[in-house]
Amino acid sequence: MTSPLIIPMPHNEAMAQAIAKFLDVGIGKIESRSFPDGETYLRFESDVAGRTLVLICTLDRPNEKILPLLFAAATARQLGAKSVSLVAPYLAYMRQDRRFKPGEAVTSREVARLLSNSFDWLVTVDPHLHRYGSLSEIYTMPTQVVHAAPLISQWIATNVSNPIIIGPDSESEQWVSAVAKDVGAPYTVLEKTRLGDREVKLSIKTLENFNGRMPVLVDDIISSGRTMIEAVRLLKEHGVSTPACVAVHGLFSDNSDQHLAQAGAHVVTANTIPHSTNRIDATELLALSVQNFIGFV
Amino acid sequence: MTSPLIIPMPHNEAMAQAIAKFLDVGIGKIESRSFPDGETYLRFESDVAGRTLVLICTLDRPNEKILPLLFAAATARQLGAKSVSLVAPYLAYMRQDRRFKPGEAVTSREVARLLSNSFDWLVTVDPHLHRYGSLSEIYTMPTQVVHAAPLISQWIATNVSNPIIIGPDSESEQWVSAVAKDVGAPYTVLEKTRLGDREVKLSIKTLENFNGRMPVLVDDIISSGRTMIEAVRLLKEHGVSTPACVAVHGLFSDNSDQHLAQAGAHVVTANTIPHSTNRIDATELLALSVQNFIGFV
Repeated sequence: MTSPLIIPMPHNEAMAQAIAKFLDVGIGKIESRSFPDGETYLRFESDVAGRTLVLICTLDRPNEKILPLLFAAATARQLGAKSVSLVAPYLAYMRQDRRFKPGEAVTSREVARLLSNSFDWLVTVDPHLHRYGSLSEIYTMPTQVVHAAPLISQWIATNVSNPIIIGPDSESEQWVSAVAKDVGAPYTVLEKTRLGDREVKLSIKTLENFNGRMPVLVDDIISSGRTMIEAVRLLKEHGVSTPACVAVHGLFSDNSDQHLAQAGAHVVTANTIPHSTNRIDATELLALSVQNFIGFV
Repeated sequence: MTSPLIIPMPHNEAMAQAIAKFLDVGIGKIESRSFPDGETYLRFESDVAGRTLVLICTLDRPNEKILPLLFAAATARQLGAKSVSLVAPYLAYMRQDRRFKPGEAVTSREVARLLSNSFDWLVTVDPHLHRYGSLSEIYTMPTQVVHAAPLISQWIATNVSNPIIIGPDSESEQWVSAVAKDVGAPYTVLEKTRLGDREVKLSIKTLENFNGRMPVLVDDIISSGRTMIEAVRLLKEHGVSTPACVAVHGLFSDNSDQHLAQAGAHVVTANTIPHSTNRIDATELLALSVQNFIGFV
């Protein structure tokens, strides 16, 4: 029996190596580059015939990544792989989960269909489930979701004394309350109104519980960062200490990492998307989920 | 009975309008933009229920374009479109048509599969058919290929007196000989050795027939432009006039349009990919192919 092979897509080498090391399985290699005309060249350098393959590909900035990923899955099957599965530490296209206006593409479903048609199973960390109850509503392959909340709680408990956990909006309440309970700290949730892709308005209901506590803003994703930046501004306005900003997935579009740094916020993210703010390591939980699927080796 | 609707994907408005005008059918509209995190938002502004849809999307720099195109096709079907077809004036991913080295992705087949699963039929201009005899070897939907050679012949006959047609390599011989015959001019073919994605070596077999004639280099695609630039250099070296460079598809990666201009070449392309060198209009042939599929309206 041949053992599984963990194979990184480009720029996912660190996570692939960490998972392979934790599981004590082999690591494979894909050669990939862009032709001058922007087309992708892709080649499996490892022999994949008869192997259980686990591709590692986080899906921030997804349009450039999904096509090569589909190429890789199809090629692996043609080359005789026994199975081809995907670890996407960050799963994109979860936010358009409904046709809000007539004619809209429900892109979450289309991406789910393309990936489900290509892979045997999927492991990801905290997908942005808002109106979907679970990934199985749109993904037809088996999926397993890793929850980063315990890792975030652990980071806060270790690094922040006397914290108060703050959620940026009502959506985050369930999540923030769980982290707060874990940490043994109070929490509060801000009120958010979204005015556009890049514009939000926040307000604070009460300042009780804040006295002397270190505010820790917690959210699942920092994208344009407007929510976090506005929250930092709001807390400053109310004379509260500059908060720590903790998120699972740091997309940091529009240079929001720099804007947050300029606002004085201490930003911490999980390593689902490689970034200098990565302080929370999801490797072990991802590896255990992979092991759930492939069995002990 | 409702009439067909021509709908441009972003940046394909000019071609869509020209085809719709030629066929005297309606033009539809898709709203599309990028979210800050790089995901695509897409919405049909036109009512497409019960309509025969023809999406227009040329596929240069394809990785960013194919995913939104698949979103559009799937969404149109969900919205009740009667059929959804594609005019891709330039069709990408035709060059990797074989596994040259073990483990390589045969990307032409994967793109063919994705597009064939999404559309009812496809119209394109001169796909780069090298080892495939026809698109039907990899595309499972009906396809129709528009040949630009007659348009190129016509441009040369109108604009160049006393030309000699030059093909950059043996691959182009059949094509170049047809144009030369059409124009009533002699032709020759250079000898090409490819040393890498961006490096080629050309040599010239004979200078007979060149006397006093205006050289016209003809190729299907200008991508990195190395072939054309090297050909211009070679002709200069042999004391021949600076040639005109005529291509169907001007991809112009690596700023090759500027390099060709600097070398003094007069570059002419078809409007399959919008560019300032577009002098050859493929609209009518594309529209006639569309009409072949949708019938007279």
